[in-house]
Amino acid sequence: METLMLEKLLESLKVNKDTQIYNYTVPDLWNCFDYDIAKFTKTQTNELMVNPYDFFASVINDFILSKKKGGVSYNHSLSKSTNKRIPKKNYRGGDWIKQSIVYSTMIRTSSAWDNDRSGLLDKENIYKMPETGSFVRMLAMLPLLKKMGVTVIYMLPISKFSLKDKKGDLGSPYGVSNFNELDPNLKDYLTKDLMTLEEEFKAFVEACHILDMRVMIDIIPRTNAVENDLIKNHPDWFYWIKASEYDKYKVPYVEGIGDTTLPTLEYMEKVYKSEDVYRHINMFQYNPKKQDKVLWNKIKNKKNLSEEIQKKFDLRIAPAFSDHINDSQPPWTDVTFFRMYEDFPKETKEFLDTTDRPPFILFDTIKSNMYHGEKPNIKLWEKLVDIVPSYQRRFGIDGARIDMGHALPSKLLEMIISKARENDEDFCFIAEELQVSNAQFAFDAGYNMIIGNGFTMEPRVFEGKLQRFIMNSNTLPLPLFACGETHDTPRLASREGNEVLSKMLTVLNMFMPNGVPFINSGQEIFERQPMNIGLDSRENEEFSLPENDPYYGKLALFDKYQFHYTNNRRWEIPDMLDTLKRIRKKWLKELTNNKSFEPIHSDGNSQTFIGLAYYKKTKTNKNNVLLILANGNPYHEVYLKPNIELLRSLSYNGEESGKLLFSTHEGPRAFTQIINHNTLDIHLGAGEVKIISL
Amino acid sequence: METLMLEKLLESLKVNKDTQIYNYTVPDLWNCFDYDIAKFTKTQTNELMVNPYDFFASVINDFILSKKKGGVSYNHSLSKSTNKRIPKKNYRGGDWIKQSIVYSTMIRTSSAWDNDRSGLLDKENIYKMPETGSFVRMLAMLPLLKKMGVTVIYMLPISKFSLKDKKGDLGSPYGVSNFNELDPNLKDYLTKDLMTLEEEFKAFVEACHILDMRVMIDIIPRTNAVENDLIKNHPDWFYWIKASEYDKYKVPYVEGIGDTTLPTLEYMEKVYKSEDVYRHINMFQYNPKKQDKVLWNKIKNKKNLSEEIQKKFDLRIAPAFSDHINDSQPPWTDVTFFRMYEDFPKETKEFLDTTDRPPFILFDTIKSNMYHGEKPNIKLWEKLVDIVPSYQRRFGIDGARIDMGHALPSKLLEMIISKARENDEDFCFIAEELQVSNAQFAFDAGYNMIIGNGFTMEPRVFEGKLQRFIMNSNTLPLPLFACGETHDTPRLASREGNEVLSKMLTVLNMFMPNGVPFINSGQEIFERQPMNIGLDSRENEEFSLPENDPYYGKLALFDKYQFHYTNNRRWEIPDMLDTLKRIRKKWLKELTNNKSFEPIHSDGNSQTFIGLAYYKKTKTNKNNVLLILANGNPYHEVYLKPNIELLRSLSYNGEESGKLLFSTHEGPRAFTQIINHNTLDIHLGAGEVKIISL
Repeated sequence: METLMLEKLLESLKVNKDTQIYNYTVPDLWNCFDYDIAKFTKTQTNELMVNPYDFFASVINDFILSKKKGGVSYNHSLSKSTNKRIPKKNYRGGDWIKQSIVYSTMIRTSSAWDNDRSGLLDKENIYKMPETGSFVRMLAMLPLLKKMGVTVIYMLPISKFSLKDKKGDLGSPYGVSNFNELDPNLKDYLTKDLMTLEEEFKAFVEACHILDMRVMIDIIPRTNAVENDLIKNHPDWFYWIKASEYDKYKVPYVEGIGDTTLPTLEYMEKVYKSEDVYRHINMFQYNPKKQDKVLWNKIKNKKNLSEEIQKKFDLRIAPAFSDHINDSQPPWTDVTFFRMYEDFPKETKEFLDTTDRPPFILFDTIKSNMYHGEKPNIKLWEKLVDIVPSYQRRFGIDGARIDMGHALPSKLLEMIISKARENDEDFCFIAEELQVSNAQFAFDAGYNMIIGNGFTMEPRVFEGKLQRFIMNSNTLPLPLFACGETHDTPRLASREGNEVLSKMLTVLNMFMPNGVPFINSGQEIFERQPMNIGLDSRENEEFSLPENDPYYGKLALFDKYQFHYTNNRRWEIPDMLDTLKRIRKKWLKELTNNKSFEPIHSDGNSQTFIGLAYYKKTKTNKNNVLLILANGNPYHEVYLKPNIELLRSLSYNGEESGKLLFSTHEGPRAFTQIINHNTLDIHLGAGEVKIISL
Repeated sequence: METLMLEKLLESLKVNKDTQIYNYTVPDLWNCFDYDIAKFTKTQTNELMVNPYDFFASVINDFILSKKKGGVSYNHSLSKSTNKRIPKKNYRGGDWIKQSIVYSTMIRTSSAWDNDRSGLLDKENIYKMPETGSFVRMLAMLPLLKKMGVTVIYMLPISKFSLKDKKGDLGSPYGVSNFNELDPNLKDYLTKDLMTLEEEFKAFVEACHILDMRVMIDIIPRTNAVENDLIKNHPDWFYWIKASEYDKYKVPYVEGIGDTTLPTLEYMEKVYKSEDVYRHINMFQYNPKKQDKVLWNKIKNKKNLSEEIQKKFDLRIAPAFSDHINDSQPPWTDVTFFRMYEDFPKETKEFLDTTDRPPFILFDTIKSNMYHGEKPNIKLWEKLVDIVPSYQRRFGIDGARIDMGHALPSKLLEMIISKARENDEDFCFIAEELQVSNAQFAFDAGYNMIIGNGFTMEPRVFEGKLQRFIMNSNTLPLPLFACGETHDTPRLASREGNEVLSKMLTVLNMFMPNGVPFINSGQEIFERQPMNIGLDSRENEEFSLPENDPYYGKLALFDKYQFHYTNNRRWEIPDMLDTLKRIRKKWLKELTNNKSFEPIHSDGNSQTFIGLAYYKKTKTNKNNVLLILANGNPYHEVYLKPNIELLRSLSYNGEESGKLLFSTHEGPRAFTQIINHNTLDIHLGAGEVKIISL
């Protein structure tokens, strides 16, 4: 059997270990693997002083490789590596996601740490080491994630991105400039030149697989950085405007149509009658190669190609913008759209004055799922279809989220999904679909789940939205994320209810019917600063930290950022999840089966109470009911008398006492608060969740 | 000219510097010498990451040696090194202390720092270096002290002390076991074996002298550690009891005499009639050598001599106790008294039942200034007399404080003082005399100043004691310390008024008539934890820090301790003193001359207002008055209209406006608040001090 890349990584760390004495710290949270107590000193700041080579070698050797099983290759997807038998009935390849707990991470941030305690996240610290994240550093987070019951590591984009006019200190990983190359900043320092970045990622995926965790990536086939590696050979894949008119470029405004309107066909005639739309589409130019092939061939191999094009052709790639009419967002200056078709959309062509004009970006050419040309840009499609297979071949990933998949030609989306499943029939796809009304489309397209709108619903406890979200998502044809925050939204810990809200939702989400528990990196330690202010942000959301915090005003998506891993409450959620994962495991079949679920209603029609019950058939009809009762109100306690008559009859459970398995507010104990056979007598503290078995 | 020891130290640091990368921090306060900005990183915690060899080398080379003057040897006292001309009139040798600003330091604490940030003050940190203080480390404090205007470094004991039954982590430096050896823990690590500890101290004294600062030590001729290096050759210099009765040893209680009574002769008859006194003195035994010379000679060279004596003779040295009758303090188990006379006190001998008994410790044998034998222990006296000369010869110190000098035979004290002044006619002596009523005795004995009771008076603003202390000390025959705290007392920053009180007194003390400004190490950064709880302590004084502070409950006098040098207000007092030292320098002659002083009274007889004026004769009668006006109340502002008519007539100053040179509450500005020629119109904020020149 071939050597694992992880073993090569371990060897590299051993080889590179030198005689330097390292005063190098990591958060104590990173040691959930019983690192030899003689090898570190714990500081007052909840950090451990370690030798980095030895520390990372130990997590690989002692925590990960020790769990390696014989005869498993680990370098394909987990299902392929373990020759998983795919269920024949009621199972779509990738449906393992339904039983998963997903941890969303941005590698460069989640595993960043000011190891030399200079106060800054250094590009080169006192030991000349970078302190931002890497796949190797992320290995030290795996024991913590394992403790929390995480089974899927979902990564924000890890591809090479453009640094042109970059936002923040580092630039956004969503401005992909080459989807097949990895972001070179993720290369680890400790391995020096003994490992390539690709090998390190491969080792990371192997490590996850050994720990029974799957790895998913985020792919972005609809947009691309305005400055990217494809221009050189494919200038015709992009939209162009005059460089000298760049400053005048703005999103066209269509009179007579409301704000942020989906560009359905009914509006398009009006769109094409708008003066401002013609002002806009008149800005577009033919691509430089088409304009002057001889000149193009002269410059196409130059180093600063964009600059050359600007100088010689007065051309620039046109920025992307929102796919909704009259959306107030300005153009997204760092990214552009791929030109999906070589011709104009057949649905709207008739509205256009003349087809003898350069291709342009407009709502219809953006929304390629709704508007299609007759000549697909086949070469581009093939390229986009191959993104996932390329990551499958090289790294053995298990799934992917498709960014803006809803704006891809449905044919192309179908190709992307089917091609990936040809390679790995158990490959999972998550739709970047926030609207639950589109769940059926996503299901039909072949996705395993959608993201959904948990992040806007769950925190709005007092509007009854948490209750509605948890209780009603059950009816959707696809599961969605059981989550209260994502990398684009405000943090739960900075919402109304703060840590209480955060804890309550993190517990509740482990048991949401038709929900896939989702933990946004940092959520587990009550991080308050959002990673991005893209969705549902409030005024000054980016200033959620105290002013004297070194990361005040910084956003992980653009800036060097480290989470507040050493705060005093850092162990609360991980310790809680350590308990909950055992309860979840025992009840996993029922938790992921609609038919085993029964809602529990409070006596007073409370909008803030959430009651969930799962039941199973057992011979004795004992210990066959699991109750999850939550008080969504983070400020006030509540006394309730929920009726369980229906549950009694469905489950045949007749127990008069049970066990309080878990509470956010107290320890486990016997549960005897049953007034009469069919009525519970429940006290829930502010934001309390109680889990009871009968 | 011979090479300075400081130059050898610099060379040692250069030689020992290695290629290790040091993640080693020092408080930013230690860089008051413009350390090369390219060589350090400032952390968020107000520390600098430096290479220790380079950092200490830089302070020596760039800040200290650069100020070295040609033709000065620096290794004698400053007066001798610079051939200072001693004034003939109104000057006692050592009277330079009257113009000084004294900084009291315990080297092992003041220069301690958790350099590797392990959270603990390590005996061996990650680089195997100790983190407690040393003379070499203390060099980095000198630029800060210089900034604050300090001219005298006064050190708590630096001699070798006993570790037997030590208090705290480290033991007390007051339990001296060998007064001529230095505490070996003060040896620096960076110099390795290229320097001896004595050489390092010598280099430190030279450094102070180059910076025009004098060095004073604390000598302890009255007591000694119960376990010490003198026993071997001089068992007869000590008092002995039966080891097997050690647990019964307690201070005798004399019925019919009040608590804590000075043992004047009138009481001694009663003392010697007390049953409990006889219980006590009956415990004493002859010294082991006298008991069995043959056996003594057999064991005297053994390694654990005390243990041997205990085993073979059943003897132990008797602990010391308070020199007051019926003082509730238990015996001081770590120290004992020297036996000053070979016979019993002639004043009390008649009260004793028989002189045919072993020597014992009692109030009269303790108070050797009041009770004298006829046979002085000459060999011992010679030894004690030579302590100071030995430090003069070896290190060139400038002065000394004598601990419990008031309990020495006056003859012996006279010998100590005169012998030191034979070597250095400008040598200064400070009496450990807290009672101002004894100032005349101290003056007569040859001291230059007493400590006084500032620390109990100054913080008691509302009882009017601050006012009385500042205004009345003027009449004493000797100056005393202008201070609000010492190493034995609570910290100003933890008293009522806290930082406001601390700031106000630190300013005021720079201008107190007949006061010598005294800064207790840590005071300059608002340290709250006392170094010892010996004097004026309140309940739980030793718990002045927050419970989660790593030094909670620790006392610098016994434990590993580092000051909170990195707190956010750390620069306030040093910056203030940097300004004040210039004003003080300009007015130093008047400040130290009683005849130039005139008190300023408030209109309302306020107990909390302090008004000081100094004036001089000038040709123009302008700019010849300095006013220091302080509101001692740290909570409330005050409006006052002090009358300056008398000052006008004494100074001939007729100015109608002046300058506000300094205020604790505002910046400098013109001063025009004069209602009519003779009345000021003053607003003072809570705890404000204003300094005005007219």
